[in-house]
Amino acid sequence: MRAVDVIRHKRDGERLTPDAIRDFVAGSTSGAWADYQTSALLMAIVLKGMGLDEAVTLTDAMVASGQRLDLREFGGIPVDKHSTGGVGDKLSLVIAPLAAACGAIVPMMSGRGLGHTGGTLDKLESIPGFRTTLSVEEMRPVLRQTGCVMISQTNDVAPADRKLYALRDVTATVESIPLICASILSKKIAEGIGALVLDVKVGTGAFMKTREDARRLASWLVSIAEQNGVRTEALLTPMNVPLGRAVGNANEVVESIETLKGRGPRDVEDLSVRLTARMLCLAGIAADDVAAERQVRSALSSGAGLERFRAIIHAQGGDARVIDDYSRLPQPAVHEPWLAPADGVVAGMDAERIGRAAVALGAGRDRADAGVDGAAGIEIMAPVGTSVKRGDPVVVLACRDRSRLPAAQALLADAIRIGGAAPDPGPMVIERIDARSAVAGAN
Amino acid sequence: MRAVDVIRHKRDGERLTPDAIRDFVAGSTSGAWADYQTSALLMAIVLKGMGLDEAVTLTDAMVASGQRLDLREFGGIPVDKHSTGGVGDKLSLVIAPLAAACGAIVPMMSGRGLGHTGGTLDKLESIPGFRTTLSVEEMRPVLRQTGCVMISQTNDVAPADRKLYALRDVTATVESIPLICASILSKKIAEGIGALVLDVKVGTGAFMKTREDARRLASWLVSIAEQNGVRTEALLTPMNVPLGRAVGNANEVVESIETLKGRGPRDVEDLSVRLTARMLCLAGIAADDVAAERQVRSALSSGAGLERFRAIIHAQGGDARVIDDYSRLPQPAVHEPWLAPADGVVAGMDAERIGRAAVALGAGRDRADAGVDGAAGIEIMAPVGTSVKRGDPVVVLACRDRSRLPAAQALLADAIRIGGAAPDPGPMVIERIDARSAVAGAN
Repeated sequence: MRAVDVIRHKRDGERLTPDAIRDFVAGSTSGAWADYQTSALLMAIVLKGMGLDEAVTLTDAMVASGQRLDLREFGGIPVDKHSTGGVGDKLSLVIAPLAAACGAIVPMMSGRGLGHTGGTLDKLESIPGFRTTLSVEEMRPVLRQTGCVMISQTNDVAPADRKLYALRDVTATVESIPLICASILSKKIAEGIGALVLDVKVGTGAFMKTREDARRLASWLVSIAEQNGVRTEALLTPMNVPLGRAVGNANEVVESIETLKGRGPRDVEDLSVRLTARMLCLAGIAADDVAAERQVRSALSSGAGLERFRAIIHAQGGDARVIDDYSRLPQPAVHEPWLAPADGVVAGMDAERIGRAAVALGAGRDRADAGVDGAAGIEIMAPVGTSVKRGDPVVVLACRDRSRLPAAQALLADAIRIGGAAPDPGPMVIERIDARSAVAGAN
Repeated sequence: MRAVDVIRHKRDGERLTPDAIRDFVAGSTSGAWADYQTSALLMAIVLKGMGLDEAVTLTDAMVASGQRLDLREFGGIPVDKHSTGGVGDKLSLVIAPLAAACGAIVPMMSGRGLGHTGGTLDKLESIPGFRTTLSVEEMRPVLRQTGCVMISQTNDVAPADRKLYALRDVTATVESIPLICASILSKKIAEGIGALVLDVKVGTGAFMKTREDARRLASWLVSIAEQNGVRTEALLTPMNVPLGRAVGNANEVVESIETLKGRGPRDVEDLSVRLTARMLCLAGIAADDVAAERQVRSALSSGAGLERFRAIIHAQGGDARVIDDYSRLPQPAVHEPWLAPADGVVAGMDAERIGRAAVALGAGRDRADAGVDGAAGIEIMAPVGTSVKRGDPVVVLACRDRSRLPAAQALLADAIRIGGAAPDPGPMVIERIDARSAVAGAN
């Protein structure tokens, strides 16, 4: 089928055949389709949509564009977690070691931060020596030794996604449920997993602002992954305020370690336990939520999760002494408190603006090819609901030099609200979407 | 404004600012916009549309991408005619000399045939020696001497259109009223004209199949051209059966010369007179239709139009002896009659299929870079309405070798209908759209 005919069909709102979708993915990756044809079809998909069946095929074709890891040698059902992105979302650093400590195989491939949300790889790379770019040959011994590996995508994994994502980024064709789902899932499925837990964030600091939009995305993700043979479920969780108290990179590593030591913020600990428990259930390690949560809490209180994180850091070339000595992590030159302008209660802390302030301090990137400052970030001293007096530090800004402060301070002035009372934060998990409930939500 | 932001605006159905449109056109032509960004925006325009004001700016920006000829040295209001494309539509070859003979300045730049419709350049190039690729320096003396020049677009004319058209052709983004209008008009406006008559074809053999669609296209064309300072009007004319009796190249030149000799088919002569008369009115040469048509008919019967065509051929390097000796034109090796399968009346002759049959014989091209056979084509012996006996020749096919016959014959079997009576052909001009009526029709 000629590229121009495939484009015309989607332009006219028709359903693409599996062959047409496979031609598109293979052609775009090989160069048989010119980039201008690929981008024209991407725009037609954004504007005319795709059916669930088309998205299932698209995902499968993107997996097939590269290598799909075979992890049968490790036994069991390899399992992973994916978050749609939040501010202060360091849960992967807590969950992966905990799940591995409970007997799961976790071949976790993550991305970098972009925009106002952070990325697992950036956080891990603030640990001196930690290598996130392992080859398939290098990852297997780590997985065998620790039950877990935390790396970036290898070049063999879903090359079609790299090609399509690069084009989408510069042609305003990012915002499309089927394209987003295929991008997320093709990389995860290619890891060789058999089960997947999705943390779909909802709120002002999330990609999905409303519960309805998040439910729709979650339903598509679950349906597509299930139809590609991966047991999947999604938890909708709130992202209106940052998770925990640290936003940045090295400081989020510290908070993750503190959580594994049983001293982390309540929201980080509880959501980590909840998500890890679901991973154990889907991987067939625990029979139900009660048993699974008991197992995860036990790995937390015994220090097994912490020791597993130490082993992972060591196995991936990092300085595992950071577990006991946080001074071995990058330290900021500047600490600047942001003071409460009045007496009252911290009533709001807008996650997106906090995230953008952290980027302004150097913790994130606005361009995909930029680096990050591992030491930069924001420490929340008075989280939402805390009573403060005028002049009390609400947050502390950390960065390399003072020239970065004004932009971040301007964002904070709009982000932090001191008032009479804080709103009810609502439940930790808003809704759970499994294979059954996804069918209705994807329509 | 960044390309990705312009694309996003149109994707979201917003109106593009004049600056955004100018950035797009200039950037696409210079390479500051990548082709994949240009094609993504083109698809967004196809699917989200453009307002008339955006199309006016787009057209102006495309004119500004190249040179706009300055023809003030010739005095008066330079005028041209453009047809949206038909089968057997050789009217330009009749109209341009007639209008010039009546005192008009006609800087006619034309295109080649593509698909089932013919092109003026292909027809002219069947005249031995006729040069259609004159530079601006070469065209001025021809225009001064004959009042007319019939050439292809120079490289300086609307380079943005060449760029955009090449991309549209391979990304299924041809079908868009604003893009079509900007493409047609940018080239015409760049010729330096002050007046334009559009022949918008309607029917089974035309780009626009229904009167409503044709009226809409005509209204957009007239409104955009008027807002770019060109006095413009459109005539909607039928294209269900071929115009005249010749479909091809050299045979259409013969029919044009015959028409200028006063011996042409009635439909070719009458529509040529009508269109030429409107050109004279818009150019300010005649006061009204009655005076204009009298002037054109006089140029026809006096032979002034014929002599003007002779002068044009000579000035552009062609062998002007073809006027009196058709054997100097390319001659086909094969003549094959297509015979009436039954007694009756020729009740239908589908223009699109006749056009495609002529292409199959070698008279046209399916790919933009292919050549054409000037001698190939179809001669209609029994036009619609003629009574025939079984075995009478209805048309004669001409081509280089017999291997081309079967495909053409198969198309003819579906194209030609012998029945009890021919339908009423309807009026020669269905409707006239001027600046006033266009305002309503463009909405």
